[in-house]
Amino acid sequence: MEGEPTLRLRIFNLNCWAIRYLSKRRQQRVRLIGDTLRQEGFDLVLLQEVWSEQDYSELKVKLAGCYPFSHYFRSGVIGSGLCVFSRFPILDTLLYQYSLNGYPYMLQHGDWFCGKSVGLPGSRAGVRASLLSLSPQLHAEYCRDKDAYLPHRLVQAWELAQFIRHTSKAADVVLLGGDLNMHPEDVGIRLLRGWTGLQDAFAEAMHFEGCKNGCTLVPDNCFTDKSELLPFPLGIRIDYILYKAISSFTVKCEELKTTTGRAPGMDIPFSDHEAVMATLHIQRQGQPAGATLGTADPALADVVTEARTEVGAGLRAARQQRYSSGRMAVLALLLLLLQAAAALATLAGLGAEQPFPKLSFCLLAFLALGVLVLATGLHLFHTMEVKMLHGTEDQMWMVLRALQERP
Amino acid sequence: MEGEPTLRLRIFNLNCWAIRYLSKRRQQRVRLIGDTLRQEGFDLVLLQEVWSEQDYSELKVKLAGCYPFSHYFRSGVIGSGLCVFSRFPILDTLLYQYSLNGYPYMLQHGDWFCGKSVGLPGSRAGVRASLLSLSPQLHAEYCRDKDAYLPHRLVQAWELAQFIRHTSKAADVVLLGGDLNMHPEDVGIRLLRGWTGLQDAFAEAMHFEGCKNGCTLVPDNCFTDKSELLPFPLGIRIDYILYKAISSFTVKCEELKTTTGRAPGMDIPFSDHEAVMATLHIQRQGQPAGATLGTADPALADVVTEARTEVGAGLRAARQQRYSSGRMAVLALLLLLLQAAAALATLAGLGAEQPFPKLSFCLLAFLALGVLVLATGLHLFHTMEVKMLHGTEDQMWMVLRALQERP
Repeated sequence: MEGEPTLRLRIFNLNCWAIRYLSKRRQQRVRLIGDTLRQEGFDLVLLQEVWSEQDYSELKVKLAGCYPFSHYFRSGVIGSGLCVFSRFPILDTLLYQYSLNGYPYMLQHGDWFCGKSVGLPGSRAGVRASLLSLSPQLHAEYCRDKDAYLPHRLVQAWELAQFIRHTSKAADVVLLGGDLNMHPEDVGIRLLRGWTGLQDAFAEAMHFEGCKNGCTLVPDNCFTDKSELLPFPLGIRIDYILYKAISSFTVKCEELKTTTGRAPGMDIPFSDHEAVMATLHIQRQGQPAGATLGTADPALADVVTEARTEVGAGLRAARQQRYSSGRMAVLALLLLLLQAAAALATLAGLGAEQPFPKLSFCLLAFLALGVLVLATGLHLFHTMEVKMLHGTEDQMWMVLRALQERP
Repeated sequence: MEGEPTLRLRIFNLNCWAIRYLSKRRQQRVRLIGDTLRQEGFDLVLLQEVWSEQDYSELKVKLAGCYPFSHYFRSGVIGSGLCVFSRFPILDTLLYQYSLNGYPYMLQHGDWFCGKSVGLPGSRAGVRASLLSLSPQLHAEYCRDKDAYLPHRLVQAWELAQFIRHTSKAADVVLLGGDLNMHPEDVGIRLLRGWTGLQDAFAEAMHFEGCKNGCTLVPDNCFTDKSELLPFPLGIRIDYILYKAISSFTVKCEELKTTTGRAPGMDIPFSDHEAVMATLHIQRQGQPAGATLGTADPALADVVTEARTEVGAGLRAARQQRYSSGRMAVLALLLLLLQAAAALATLAGLGAEQPFPKLSFCLLAFLALGVLVLATGLHLFHTMEVKMLHGTEDQMWMVLRALQERP
């Protein structure tokens, strides 16, 4: 065991906030990110919110020398925004799309049009450890007090955890770096960590340097929305590097760093999020560590129960919305039928003594038709939402039963 | 190795064609399926197209005695139609949704509203083999000569293969039973089998009994569409049971059976598809069989190239449709702007000598608005389609490169 070589792995994770036409000083920041990555020479770079494929292409050209392997994940209307640069060969990639990701009609929140989770394994010749790296982004939280997206985010956290459980057994080490849009104590994070056994690099790091409490949305950053951070004067931590060893390997976090409101040595930050950088030590052990995925944490059942309660609340809300939109569609259809009857009566010569109000009749008919189409669309969408929330509730129940049956 | 016990596993697979209000003699057939499953006592039952949750619930009640474990997969607007009954505990389930599944506006083909792939591992105490069972249904083929859905089905076959590769390493044995909507020699089947190493129970069976060539859509079945089978007088085989051993196990197919146009001993069939029933022998070997997922088939690169060519053709078509719908949206927007200008001019008193044609003006405006909304929706949809086809093409290219670099 002593003689086994150690792999020192340096990881860079950043939500780049690179939305074309919307993000401030985007091109300058993307250039800065590229320059820094080239200078620093990390082993693995996980980026989120690189929405423009052109930005990715520019980064790829700039970083070709030090990160010969890269991948951009295409999905959704806008894209997933996720890309990866690596010193090690990327052998294979897999994109997992969450079944729920906000509402298409909440245009101002935009999550429906993007936001996916990804996994990709790479391989390392040195200690021959196969890495499974994940770069997820979960649905944003727009209002913490009245978080309408909590059930969707919990479904995503659950699906992410299930995805990790099912795919990670082929790897030696699982690495996750991403913007999870959840505070460290939130039920979604506890669910993800509890159900996968992933360890938090911030909590485990032997040495930490950066924003207090490892925060990644801080008031010192000139791009952050200050009103959002009012209840959290120190900032919040929503970007994470998590890891775990699956087979005969051990992983230790030597160092964790975050940027502190601006890029090192510059007067602007990389993004509205802080970058998270970890140095991990990966070493092969003498014998397999055994099955490490099923965590024996007695609190896990409580976390799953808590999450299931929230998903259940979301399910009730979705059922209510499905019912409302269905009722609206039926009403619009009734109005249309009534109009058709009136038109037929007029054609048949009834009420001919009064002039027929053609214009307002047409306007009303189109209004009813518009409402019918819209309400039907909403009804279909909420039907899907109900199905997915119900399915997740079922899965959680199955897991709870298995957890309770365990000695 | 001689002393190791053998697990004899009997699997039943059927596309039930149980669409409420549409499928002929649905309730009678579902009852018949339930009765047969109870009598025969299979170990694992994989059903597709059970669209009504009520049908599932009735089956569940009827089969509770002999199949204590079951799961129904909820997804999409209508549901996935997939359910599983098992003699062994179902420990965990995972639903993978294909990124592409037809077009929402092709209502008569309906695939967009349903159709998902699923995986679930169960466990067996006897030889302690963990099973990963998959029950996928791929997009239907509506016209073989001019198959507009081929690129979508290839993306699904690819995603299914990738999903199996990434999830199966945790299992000892992978079983797949489903309606793949592809003929045995189709590129999608060759891709799926080549890239996962799954074996075809029909080809491997020591003993076969049933329709000639293992066909599962046959003219003898009173529910099949005879015109669809005109070019194939013997029928076609699109329902499969595939399997492979992952770790230190061997799997052999002792027997494969299909029904032959009607349920055994009855005068009506179970469904418009024939049921496929396999008896597998699973035995633990002395030493691990080693990595068996990466198949060394030299023809694999050719298959991936062929599939990539088809996906590329689909990508060009999707780009063309994205462009057409975008242009239509722009034209509708221009018409609306023109109308707005005309309305403003009238309000400003220009052309007051002529009566303003309010009614036709309103009708035209609503028409333009309708076209704008529809064309924008189509444009967004085809944008997603382009992204997913492009992403799959990329992934295939990555795999091709890795295959070619192999000695």
